[in-house]
Amino acid sequence: MINVVVLVSGGGTNLQALIDSIEAGEVSNATISAVISNKKDAYALTRAEKHGIPSDCISPKDYDNGEEFAEALLAALEKYNADLVVLAGYLVIVPLKVIDKYYGRMINIHPSLIPSHCGPGYYGLHVHESVLARGNKVTGATVHFVDEGTDTGPIILQKAVDVMEDDTPEVLQKRVMEQAEWKILPQAVDLIANDKIYIDGKVVKNRR
Amino acid sequence: MINVVVLVSGGGTNLQALIDSIEAGEVSNATISAVISNKKDAYALTRAEKHGIPSDCISPKDYDNGEEFAEALLAALEKYNADLVVLAGYLVIVPLKVIDKYYGRMINIHPSLIPSHCGPGYYGLHVHESVLARGNKVTGATVHFVDEGTDTGPIILQKAVDVMEDDTPEVLQKRVMEQAEWKILPQAVDLIANDKIYIDGKVVKNRR
Repeated sequence: MINVVVLVSGGGTNLQALIDSIEAGEVSNATISAVISNKKDAYALTRAEKHGIPSDCISPKDYDNGEEFAEALLAALEKYNADLVVLAGYLVIVPLKVIDKYYGRMINIHPSLIPSHCGPGYYGLHVHESVLARGNKVTGATVHFVDEGTDTGPIILQKAVDVMEDDTPEVLQKRVMEQAEWKILPQAVDLIANDKIYIDGKVVKNRR
Repeated sequence: MINVVVLVSGGGTNLQALIDSIEAGEVSNATISAVISNKKDAYALTRAEKHGIPSDCISPKDYDNGEEFAEALLAALEKYNADLVVLAGYLVIVPLKVIDKYYGRMINIHPSLIPSHCGPGYYGLHVHESVLARGNKVTGATVHFVDEGTDTGPIILQKAVDVMEDDTPEVLQKRVMEQAEWKILPQAVDLIANDKIYIDGKVVKNRR
């Protein structure tokens, strides 16, 4: 059984999808040992409380510098025995020291088909605005291991979603969440918890 | 009934898909008035002959400069009364003069989900090598109007295709052709031939 620590900044719908998938048995060998938010009022913290999951608020604003924030985050991940760190709508840049320590044990969900519409500046609604501005007919979501770049790590799962004629960024965001994010994030956790995949250079492969 | 002129460089499997879709009635209001290749020995020319479609070979190598090649290409498109120009595996850079004259009436098929794995240098197997090197789990194909950039024009249709664990570039290329290119290229011609779509800035929209 692996301990998953989920890092969030907002509503926590991806956290909820993961909680539900674990409770339904669709994700096995994993338990969420803590939820860490950088915002005290994130609704994700309420979701954690409802399911009896410990939580913490650790914000870079509460520390004098990045180094101290990194140490606080590392201490929290150790406190909750994190085997896997899930960035689920976490809008803070993770310190390099934390990324390096957890490489191969930290994953992120991005609401597009990487390498489209990703990189610095592409988060939240901006991603879907970019998709609509380019006139894409297909978009989707990606779960990937976190490396030192922005959205550049090895890809675990991707799922395509159709763009519709009258989509607004908000409508498209919701469809991508429902049809892709809430499915592939739990699936990725299940693959890792059951040791089904490994990283080979830039590529994620299945164990045979 | 619109006249379609298909520009090719090689085997012409996308040309064949278009011929078959027209003969099957899946594409209406369109006839292929000519196939133009830049290579004399392109198998696409044999396909044209088998179906009684006129063909020409026009290669930049046979002209002193780009201007003369552009004039020869324009003359051929006029000769065959091209209402729509389809680039179907055409590995020649289309002269700007031709692009400008046929903007909104010239389409291209690209074997990835634009804006991923596209632009200068991304053609044929290179595209699929790039997809596999990035470790993508989803790829696809895109039909778009041709503008002055490389793969930057307004997108008409896109279709996603799964990448499989043991894919080679060749295996992936074949799957993308079968599951995406051979479907969306005829569909795009049908949409244009029946006046179902229009360009609004960078976005292709459906007429109501």
